[in-house]
Amino acid sequence: MPEFLKLLPPDEALSIWLGALPEPQEFAVETCGTSGALNRVLAENIIASESLPPFSRSTVDGYAVRSADTYGATPALPAYLDLIGEVRMGEHSSLELNPGQAVLIHTGGMIPSSADTVVMLEDTQQARAEQIEVLKAAATGENIIIAGEDVQAGQTVLEAGRILRPQEIGGLMALGHIQIPVRSKPRVAILSTGDELVPPDSPVAAGQVRDINSYSLGALVEHLGGQVSRRVLLHDDRQELQQALQLAHREDDLVLITAGSSVSERDFTAQAIDTLGEPGVLVHGIQIKPGKPTILAAVAGKPVLGLPGNPVSAFVIAGLFLPPVLRRILGVRGDSPSAVITARLTVNISSAAGRVDFVPVRLSNQGDEWLAEPVYGRSNLIFTLVRADGLIRIPPSATGLEQGTQVTVSLF
Amino acid sequence: MPEFLKLLPPDEALSIWLGALPEPQEFAVETCGTSGALNRVLAENIIASESLPPFSRSTVDGYAVRSADTYGATPALPAYLDLIGEVRMGEHSSLELNPGQAVLIHTGGMIPSSADTVVMLEDTQQARAEQIEVLKAAATGENIIIAGEDVQAGQTVLEAGRILRPQEIGGLMALGHIQIPVRSKPRVAILSTGDELVPPDSPVAAGQVRDINSYSLGALVEHLGGQVSRRVLLHDDRQELQQALQLAHREDDLVLITAGSSVSERDFTAQAIDTLGEPGVLVHGIQIKPGKPTILAAVAGKPVLGLPGNPVSAFVIAGLFLPPVLRRILGVRGDSPSAVITARLTVNISSAAGRVDFVPVRLSNQGDEWLAEPVYGRSNLIFTLVRADGLIRIPPSATGLEQGTQVTVSLF
Repeated sequence: MPEFLKLLPPDEALSIWLGALPEPQEFAVETCGTSGALNRVLAENIIASESLPPFSRSTVDGYAVRSADTYGATPALPAYLDLIGEVRMGEHSSLELNPGQAVLIHTGGMIPSSADTVVMLEDTQQARAEQIEVLKAAATGENIIIAGEDVQAGQTVLEAGRILRPQEIGGLMALGHIQIPVRSKPRVAILSTGDELVPPDSPVAAGQVRDINSYSLGALVEHLGGQVSRRVLLHDDRQELQQALQLAHREDDLVLITAGSSVSERDFTAQAIDTLGEPGVLVHGIQIKPGKPTILAAVAGKPVLGLPGNPVSAFVIAGLFLPPVLRRILGVRGDSPSAVITARLTVNISSAAGRVDFVPVRLSNQGDEWLAEPVYGRSNLIFTLVRADGLIRIPPSATGLEQGTQVTVSLF
Repeated sequence: MPEFLKLLPPDEALSIWLGALPEPQEFAVETCGTSGALNRVLAENIIASESLPPFSRSTVDGYAVRSADTYGATPALPAYLDLIGEVRMGEHSSLELNPGQAVLIHTGGMIPSSADTVVMLEDTQQARAEQIEVLKAAATGENIIIAGEDVQAGQTVLEAGRILRPQEIGGLMALGHIQIPVRSKPRVAILSTGDELVPPDSPVAAGQVRDINSYSLGALVEHLGGQVSRRVLLHDDRQELQQALQLAHREDDLVLITAGSSVSERDFTAQAIDTLGEPGVLVHGIQIKPGKPTILAAVAGKPVLGLPGNPVSAFVIAGLFLPPVLRRILGVRGDSPSAVITARLTVNISSAAGRVDFVPVRLSNQGDEWLAEPVYGRSNLIFTLVRADGLIRIPPSATGLEQGTQVTVSLF
C-alpha cells in the first residue's frame, strides 16, 4: 500500500490491526513467585481449594455465647452467664457451650461450634471471676464472620486475564497459592533505522545523534508489561533491515521499527514488512498528529508497528497503539478504565479538523484545580516530552480548543 | 497516648507525621543503568554537557539552500539553483554553498554551515541532473531545527527528585547519561502480629489463617518504589514484638506493623513503639473508616506506621499514608497529580458525618460513562478488594451520597 494513499482515523486503524491478531491463548505461559507477580497477567482461572475464612471468626473482642441466652438483656436486667474458658488465637477451640455459658474470645478468634453470636466486651460486665453480665441482647450471627463468607471452596476467585494488583496477590496468598501461573512477558524487538544513530554510550561524531527511541520506547514496553528482547540499530540498508526484521519476527512477539522520518526510509520499511509474509502492512498513514506516517502491520499473526523516527511522534504513537496490542497478546480481560486529570486550558490551541491531535501539556496546581499549559516543541525534541505531564486529545471534529476549556489529560 | 483519646482528621494526622521526618537528603543514593531506571527517583540534578541537537538538522527531505536565493520564487517563476551534492546521514557535511547553489538533504541531516533554510522536496522540481527549480520562497530557518533548540549545554535538564518516566530515560540517553544517580529504594520492614498467622506456604491448622498483609502491603510498597526488606510474623508477645521493632527500626527506612485488631494488641503495639525512642507515637486513632485504629509514629526521624490487622483496613490506610511518606523518603519533587475516573454512583451510600469514609467500588462501562457500584464486605475480607477497581472518598461533611451522584474514583 503506497504511503498516505488513504489516511485512516486512529480507532479504525486500531481495529483493523487487532482484527489481524490471534487470540491470546497462543502466547506463552510461565509460573512466578509472589515477589515477581505484581502487574503480571494471570494465565489460568484460580479456583479456591478451601473456603475463606476457613472457620467462623469473631470480628470483635468479647464473649462467644448462645444468642437465646441474651434475650431481653438490658443494663437494668442483665443476663448472667458462666465463663467457662477462653478461645486462644490460632488454636482450634474444642470448647462446647451449654445454655447459660460464655467463652472469652478475641478479634479473629475461632467461634466455638455451639456459640452463635459474640457479645462485645463493652456490652458486658464481669460480675465474678467465673461469671459475666450481658447488658444487651445479641442477635444470631452478630459480630461473626462466617466460614466461607469471603470465598467458598470450589469458587472461581480470579479469572485468567486479570492483572495482578496488590490485593489479588493478597487473595492468592490467603488461599495458599504461592506459585502463580502468569502470561510470559511479550518479547518486543525494537529496531531503529538511521545512518546517523549511535548507541548512547558511544562517542558521537559530527552529523551523528544518540539513539533515544530504543530506550524511551523500551521503558514504555516494560511499563506496559512487556520485555525488550533486542535493541538493534540499523543502517539505511534494505538488506540489513530485511534480515533484522526476519530474525525479530521469528523470535519475538511484537516488532517495533522506528523508521527514520525520510519518505524513502518509510517506504522501504513498509516494503520490507510486506516481504515478511501475509497480510503485511494493513495501515500506512493515520489521521493523527503527531504520527501521520505510522505503519500497522501483521505477519503470520504477529504484530509489527512502524513508528516515525522522531522521538515525540514515536512516543505518542507507541503510547496509543502499544497498550491495546500488548493487552491483546497478554490476554488481559475486560475494559480497563484509564484514569485522567481534569484541567483547565491556559491558552487557545488550534488544530486541523479531520485529524486527531495530541498536544503535550504541563500541569500546575492552582487552588483547587489543575491548569494545563501546552508544551510546544517540534516532534524532534525529546525534552518537549520531559517537560510535559500528559497529553490532551483534540477530536477530529474540532478546529481547536479555547482558553479556559475544561480538558481531560491522560498522564504519561 | 491512650488509644482514641483524640481522633484526628486524616490530613492533620498526615501533616503531623511528615513534620517529624527529616529531609530526604539523608537517605541513600545509588547508580543504576538504563534498564532499571524506570520509575526510580533522580538523586542529582542533571546538567547537559552538550547541546541537543548537537548540530542544526533538517526536519524534512529537500534541499539546503540560502534563503536569499529563493526570494520571489513561484511555480510560474522558479528560482534555478545548481545542485552541488548531498548531505549523507550521519556524516559531517563540509559542503560550502555559494550563492545560487543547493545541496540535497534528508530529514535529520546536518545543515551545511552556509545554508540557512531547507526547501521541501515537494516545492521543487529537478530541471536537469545538476539543477533544481525552487517553486516557492523559503524563509530563513524554515524546516531547520537549530543546534541547542532542545537543550543548551550547561542547562539543568532534570532536577533531583524527578521520577524517571520513559521520556526522561530517553532524554538521559540523548545526552549520553547511561549511569543514572537515583535514590536507593527505601527499605520497608513489614511486621505482622497475631498468634493465628502462618506463612502462605505453610499448612494451616484449625484456628489459623494465612498471612495476607505481608504480601498485599509488600506489593504496594514495591509499586510505590520501595523494597520489602523483611517480612516477619510475630506472636502476640511483647518481648518478641519489641525485639523485632528494634531490629527493623535500626536497619530499615520505614517500619509497617499490622497489629492485629484486638484492643490489647493495638495497645501494646503503641507501647512498644514508644519504648523505641522519641518522639514515638504521634497519632493514635484517625477519623476515618476503615482504619480508625491507625498509629502514625516516628522514632529518631524514621517513620513507623501501625495498621489495623484486617486486610481491607490495612490496605486502605497504607494506600493513603504510604505514598506521601515514601515520596518524602525518596525526595520526590512537587505535587504529583493523581489521575481519577469520574463515574456515576449506582446506589445511595450512607456515611457518618465527621469522618472520612472510603468505599471500595467496582466500575462498569455504560455507553459513554462509568458506573461505580459499592463493593460491600467487611474489612476482614480480602476479596472485597479484589472485586473493587478503586475507592471513593466521602468527606466528613457528608452523611452519604445519593444514587446518580457523580463521584471521583481513585483507582487502586
